[in-house]
Amino acid sequence: MVLKMNSLYSPAIILVKPQLGENIGMCARAMLNCGVTELRLVSPRDGWPNPSAISAASGAISVLEKAKVFNTAKDAIADLEYVVATTARSRDMTKEVLSPEQASQAIRSRKKCGIMFGPERTGLENDDVCLANAILNIPLNPEFSSLNISQAVLLACFSWLSADNQFVGISQPEENETADKGDIDALVSRLEKDLETSGFFSNQQQKPTVLKNLRNFFFRISPTKQEIRTLHGIIISLTGRK
Amino acid sequence: MVLKMNSLYSPAIILVKPQLGENIGMCARAMLNCGVTELRLVSPRDGWPNPSAISAASGAISVLEKAKVFNTAKDAIADLEYVVATTARSRDMTKEVLSPEQASQAIRSRKKCGIMFGPERTGLENDDVCLANAILNIPLNPEFSSLNISQAVLLACFSWLSADNQFVGISQPEENETADKGDIDALVSRLEKDLETSGFFSNQQQKPTVLKNLRNFFFRISPTKQEIRTLHGIIISLTGRK
Repeated sequence: MVLKMNSLYSPAIILVKPQLGENIGMCARAMLNCGVTELRLVSPRDGWPNPSAISAASGAISVLEKAKVFNTAKDAIADLEYVVATTARSRDMTKEVLSPEQASQAIRSRKKCGIMFGPERTGLENDDVCLANAILNIPLNPEFSSLNISQAVLLACFSWLSADNQFVGISQPEENETADKGDIDALVSRLEKDLETSGFFSNQQQKPTVLKNLRNFFFRISPTKQEIRTLHGIIISLTGRK
Repeated sequence: MVLKMNSLYSPAIILVKPQLGENIGMCARAMLNCGVTELRLVSPRDGWPNPSAISAASGAISVLEKAKVFNTAKDAIADLEYVVATTARSRDMTKEVLSPEQASQAIRSRKKCGIMFGPERTGLENDDVCLANAILNIPLNPEFSSLNISQAVLLACFSWLSADNQFVGISQPEENETADKGDIDALVSRLEKDLETSGFFSNQQQKPTVLKNLRNFFFRISPTKQEIRTLHGIIISLTGRK
């Protein structure tokens, strides 16, 4: 196998609320084993930097030194165009479920991608899963499927590294780039505000579920930047407000 | 993906001189994640059982409780018919080098197989590698390829679990079983003794290398039980001794 790592955009690894420094260090080691170097941390429980992470990284210090810290998962993925969320549990939302191979092919065909992992004890919350384009499911022994987080990171990164580059890519005119997650967030936040003003949420109890479904829809579909602009225009037109 | 684990013979995982109990525990967890349950330990440094292993196994206690301990790698693989040795370094011996997929296919086509891993700090010694039929090489970032042992176990086991069952198998008459590694060891030990008696090792300095090459040859080729009997007959005939 010839490794053509420099010719590929490797995915960012996003750890949402990781608990143990040791695990963050082992994740960094597993990433670098596979040539994946961009680590993003969302509210690490024990703060950052973390000495336990350094000793557990067994030399993968460059990954830890370059790691960026964010307050929310939404912030951490704002500049990405395609994100998969890892979760062992099935979720009550419409979202493509991919095998490691399928996720790797999808990531290899795009430029700015990320793979998101939840806290060790609980995994990702629904509110974070709904920010992703797809769910990555690693098929394991159904009677004992709980992976250590660094093991999950390793399997995802190794699958990316080993994937054949057979994906034919996505037909997309150059002037028609995929929107960043930040663009989508701006659209959805605006829509939420306008819906609030227009009295859309008559039932306050159901509001969180409605919002989650709305967010899930827009984050999943990978609209282009032009489509986002069009959708803003539609909202303006419908509300009659600028 | 449909998991047909019960219809498969899963490989034994052989840890040669493992150092940290934590790592043994994490190996057990990774094994059970992939439905691999047979753990064999060769001279674990800190003795056995080991409380650190139990706490690191995160519930994979059944694997640890059934683990068997051996004095030597040779003893640990005596009842197996096909063994692969994991090593990152290239070795000065003739031995097929397999990718994880290739190793998994080879293992899936046989009944009593094992995958052997060396101590954390040094990896397998040549004397243990030469007991294997083939070398398993996991292609990783060439600039940072040292895996934690539980990560190596996970990749090998996950590859076994995910392998398509496309291997067509080996054409072999039922009465012509592959010899166990123990049968091979008995033959080679006998040959060594006879060669000693016949003055074969005139150069005592080269003797260890010659013995290693001899052992590598017989352990690699998977002779049948009948062929082993024939080889014993040849030795008897050549030496004129019973």
